[in-house]
Amino acid sequence: MRISQLAEQTGVPVHTLKYYLREGLLMPGSATSRTRAEYDDRHVERVRLVRALVEHGQVPIASVRTIVEALDSPPPHRHELLGVAHCALPTPPTSGAVSPEVAGLVEELGWYVAPDAPALLALSDAVSAARRAGVALEEQTLRHYASAMQEVAAVDVDLALGAGSTAEALRLVVVGTVLVDPVLLALRRVAQEAVSAGRPDGPGAGRPD
Amino acid sequence: MRISQLAEQTGVPVHTLKYYLREGLLMPGSATSRTRAEYDDRHVERVRLVRALVEHGQVPIASVRTIVEALDSPPPHRHELLGVAHCALPTPPTSGAVSPEVAGLVEELGWYVAPDAPALLALSDAVSAARRAGVALEEQTLRHYASAMQEVAAVDVDLALGAGSTAEALRLVVVGTVLVDPVLLALRRVAQEAVSAGRPDGPGAGRPD
Repeated sequence: MRISQLAEQTGVPVHTLKYYLREGLLMPGSATSRTRAEYDDRHVERVRLVRALVEHGQVPIASVRTIVEALDSPPPHRHELLGVAHCALPTPPTSGAVSPEVAGLVEELGWYVAPDAPALLALSDAVSAARRAGVALEEQTLRHYASAMQEVAAVDVDLALGAGSTAEALRLVVVGTVLVDPVLLALRRVAQEAVSAGRPDGPGAGRPD
Repeated sequence: MRISQLAEQTGVPVHTLKYYLREGLLMPGSATSRTRAEYDDRHVERVRLVRALVEHGQVPIASVRTIVEALDSPPPHRHELLGVAHCALPTPPTSGAVSPEVAGLVEELGWYVAPDAPALLALSDAVSAARRAGVALEEQTLRHYASAMQEVAAVDVDLALGAGSTAEALRLVVVGTVLVDPVLLALRRVAQEAVSAGRPDGPGAGRPD
C-alpha cells in the first residue's frame, strides 16, 4: 500500500508517518520509484505500536526508538527478553544505587533478580522519594505491595511465554508492561473506592449483596 | 523562619518558593513587615509535598493546585476523601464513557463504586488503548489484575484510615496514591524478572534455595 493508505488504515496522518520514518521509529517501505514506496502489514502493526507507546504510554521518542530497535533484533534467549525490555523502557532518573532495604526485601522474598537490574534502582528511588514526601512506607507495607505485584507479574510472564516467537514475546513484554501500567493504576483507584466503600462508615457498608 | 531559612530547610531555592507562592501552591507566610514574612513548620511540610508531587509524581502544576486546595478544605466525611483525592489526581484525558465491559467487571467483582468515578473512565480508556496496541487483555486476565490491585487497595485504605484527622487522611491518600504508583510499577518489573527467572529455562530455575 502507499503511504496515504497506511495513513488511512492506521488513522495516523501522513506528516506524522513521515516524522516516524525520519526518526527511525518506522522501517522504510520498499522503494517502487524515486518518490514512491510500498508499505505492508508490518508497517501497519509498527505504526499502531509507536502510536500507542507515544500517546498512551507517554514514552519519550528516544525510548520508543530503543524499543523498536530491540524489536528488530531480539535477543537469542527468551529469558534475556525482560532484561532487554526493561532497559528499553523509560525509567525515571535513578540515584545509581540499590538501597540495602530493597536488596534485603528481594532477598527475603526469595526473588532471583540481577543485582544491577534497572528495576531495582527504580524501586530504591521510588521508595525514598515517597518517604521524603511523608509517606510512611513500612517494611510490612512494602512486603504486602510486593506480594500483590508478584501476582501481577505471574500473569504478565504467562502472557509473554505464550507468544509464538521470541520477537513476539519481546513485543508482548514491552507493550504489555508500558500499556498495562495505566490499567493497573486505574484498577488500584477503582479498588480503593470499592474497599473504602465496604469499610464501616463507607456508603456501601451493610448494603444488600 | 524567613524565606531563606525555609529554602535551606527544604532544599528548595528561594526563587522556586516564590514561584510556589505566586501559583498558590504554598500558603503565604504571616507578614511581619512590608517586605518580610514569617514561615513555620506547616510551610516546610507543604513545600516538601509540592516538591514531591512535581518532581517524583510528575504531577502538572494545575493538578497540584487542585490537590493543595482540597488539602486546605477537606470534605466533612471521611468516606468522601477518595472521591476528592481521585478528582484532584491527574488522570489521562478520557473518552467520557465507561465501557460495558468495565462496568460488568466491577459488578461481577461485587465492587461498590460510583458509576461516574473518574477511575472507571480512566480504566475503560486504558483497557481500550492497550487493546488497540495489540495487547490481548482477556476478561480472565483483567480479573487476575483486579484481584491483585484489590490487595494493594486494602493496604492503601488501611494506611489512610489510620490517620489522626480527615485532613491527614486526605494527605495520605493523595500522596500515597501519586507517590506509591512508581513504587508499584517498579515492583512489577522486579517481580517480572523474579517470576521469569524461576520458570523452566530461566537463569534461576533449579538453583538451590
